[in-house]
Amino acid sequence: MNLKEFAGQLGLSQTTVSRALSGYPEVKKTTRERVLKAAAELGYRPNTSALGLATGRVGTIGIVFRGGGDFGPHTSEFMGGLGSRLQQADVDILLSTVDTREAELATYRRLAASKRVDAVILHSPAVDDPRIALLTELRLPFVLHGRTGTAGNFAFLDIDNFGAIRQATELLTALGHRRIALVNGHRGYTFTEHRQDGYAAALGARGIDIDPNLLGNGDFTDEMGFRLMQGFLAQENRPTAVLAGSMMSALGAMRAIRSAGMTVGEHISLIAHDDVFPYLSPENLIPTLTTTRSSIRAAGTRIAEMVLDLLQGTPAADLCQVWPVELVMRSSTAPPPN
Amino acid sequence: MNLKEFAGQLGLSQTTVSRALSGYPEVKKTTRERVLKAAAELGYRPNTSALGLATGRVGTIGIVFRGGGDFGPHTSEFMGGLGSRLQQADVDILLSTVDTREAELATYRRLAASKRVDAVILHSPAVDDPRIALLTELRLPFVLHGRTGTAGNFAFLDIDNFGAIRQATELLTALGHRRIALVNGHRGYTFTEHRQDGYAAALGARGIDIDPNLLGNGDFTDEMGFRLMQGFLAQENRPTAVLAGSMMSALGAMRAIRSAGMTVGEHISLIAHDDVFPYLSPENLIPTLTTTRSSIRAAGTRIAEMVLDLLQGTPAADLCQVWPVELVMRSSTAPPPN
Repeated sequence: MNLKEFAGQLGLSQTTVSRALSGYPEVKKTTRERVLKAAAELGYRPNTSALGLATGRVGTIGIVFRGGGDFGPHTSEFMGGLGSRLQQADVDILLSTVDTREAELATYRRLAASKRVDAVILHSPAVDDPRIALLTELRLPFVLHGRTGTAGNFAFLDIDNFGAIRQATELLTALGHRRIALVNGHRGYTFTEHRQDGYAAALGARGIDIDPNLLGNGDFTDEMGFRLMQGFLAQENRPTAVLAGSMMSALGAMRAIRSAGMTVGEHISLIAHDDVFPYLSPENLIPTLTTTRSSIRAAGTRIAEMVLDLLQGTPAADLCQVWPVELVMRSSTAPPPN
Repeated sequence: MNLKEFAGQLGLSQTTVSRALSGYPEVKKTTRERVLKAAAELGYRPNTSALGLATGRVGTIGIVFRGGGDFGPHTSEFMGGLGSRLQQADVDILLSTVDTREAELATYRRLAASKRVDAVILHSPAVDDPRIALLTELRLPFVLHGRTGTAGNFAFLDIDNFGAIRQATELLTALGHRRIALVNGHRGYTFTEHRQDGYAAALGARGIDIDPNLLGNGDFTDEMGFRLMQGFLAQENRPTAVLAGSMMSALGAMRAIRSAGMTVGEHISLIAHDDVFPYLSPENLIPTLTTTRSSIRAAGTRIAEMVLDLLQGTPAADLCQVWPVELVMRSSTAPPPN
């Protein structure tokens, strides 16, 4: 319902309604009360939100998820942060689900053509990402969660995956580890490559060659963490430490280590990347886990602010952030046995 | 973009475009190829989806979440099921985030007035739920995930929470337990009351009185499971078994039990309700957990089907389902010590 329709329902002029809602003193108290009551009852919200100030906004931000895999614990935390901040600006989220990258591209075309969203949030970027060029061509504003090697002038927020894993690997080499396994995401995604680069940089600084047998890639699930860790432990020259890409991977890796009759923090050191899930804290596990930590919910909140800023005219070049990641020492890291 | 606009862009009649997209043989091959190529490029989708068949549909289903708490692991699984099924019908989800129940009601008024959604999904119903009357008054179609004591003729899907917890409690009493704690949701929600009723029915059948000191209510998180379990264990006459409302609560309860120097499945029996999170399986824990099991993702998928059916004219009275819940025996249940 817009102002015109709302004023029409009340039989008042748009000016009177506007002034009543803004609390102007020249509107009679009884009129103001009547307008406020009707606004509450009819769910009418004056366009005083960040988006409403600009003309032609629909007050909706789009986001596209891939069918099965994208609805996991990382997504719900991110959406929690995004939604809670957009809510303060009275902005809704239009969520489209697709199966393939092609369907995702077609969805952006459709959203742009139908003008149903003011902007979109891109996530899970690849090093070479065709969505950047498409959205630029469609003139559909967007903020990227993550980074990409694709050139362009656009807003993004990423965490320092390179620095996080380099720091974690350095801690392990300082403790004396030389056989360090890496449970990483799927190849081609920027965060996966940045993490592997950070790992390689830390090993290289100590003159340790990378052993491809110690690199594992897959979804960040308990199951994949278990399978990859079992594979590492089955090797003759097995690792004495492992870097797990998420708390979920860490749960699976810990299970594999226990099943092999070994103890985390004693026979095997473990560092997990912690996205800060409220229901799965590294300080609550036994042993407590050393982690690289960055709240994905906080990233969702910040990205909401960035997209609101973008739509209010802040240049995209001023909306590019890389967050440092903390390394939090707990009990799962120790020198290798003997 | 509708058919008229799309045909206009191509300089073809609507009939020709429709026939080309449907593969009619009287359309020239070159024309058909041109139309298909343009449709892919422009993101035009003919209205052959379930919703598009009816007139005046916008192809969007609404759902409202409360700020912080609603974005948890249960939500992401449910949304995964909902989104994957709606996607097949080319239907998007409009997600609104609110802080309070009043703001939620205002959101439904706004969605109805602006005609931005064809229907909404209600979740987390209370025994006495004001949303039913409002949506009925607004004539906004809806499907409820769960049940409510509020009268009305509407579509819903719930699981048999009463039967699930009665069966689980019966297993424990059959093993000889008489001091059984219940980690439940917040009072007032229908599922919380149904679970407590099932618990009471099973205890009553054995002549066991309910001890209010063994009833705990709160969020289904690791933290709350830990705190409630610590409280139970601090009692002089402590329980020998516990029913955990979710896998998250169970993780916290297990930690509290371990911290007290006891072993699950030996000193304390534990049964969890398992919503089937792909990254947290009861068969992967040590010991493996006995559970009542029902996939919340499958519920999301079924609710998507129900809302599509509802919009195609199936009467709400034919769209009321209560799913039975399985009891899966594993290693966390045993007779009480001595």
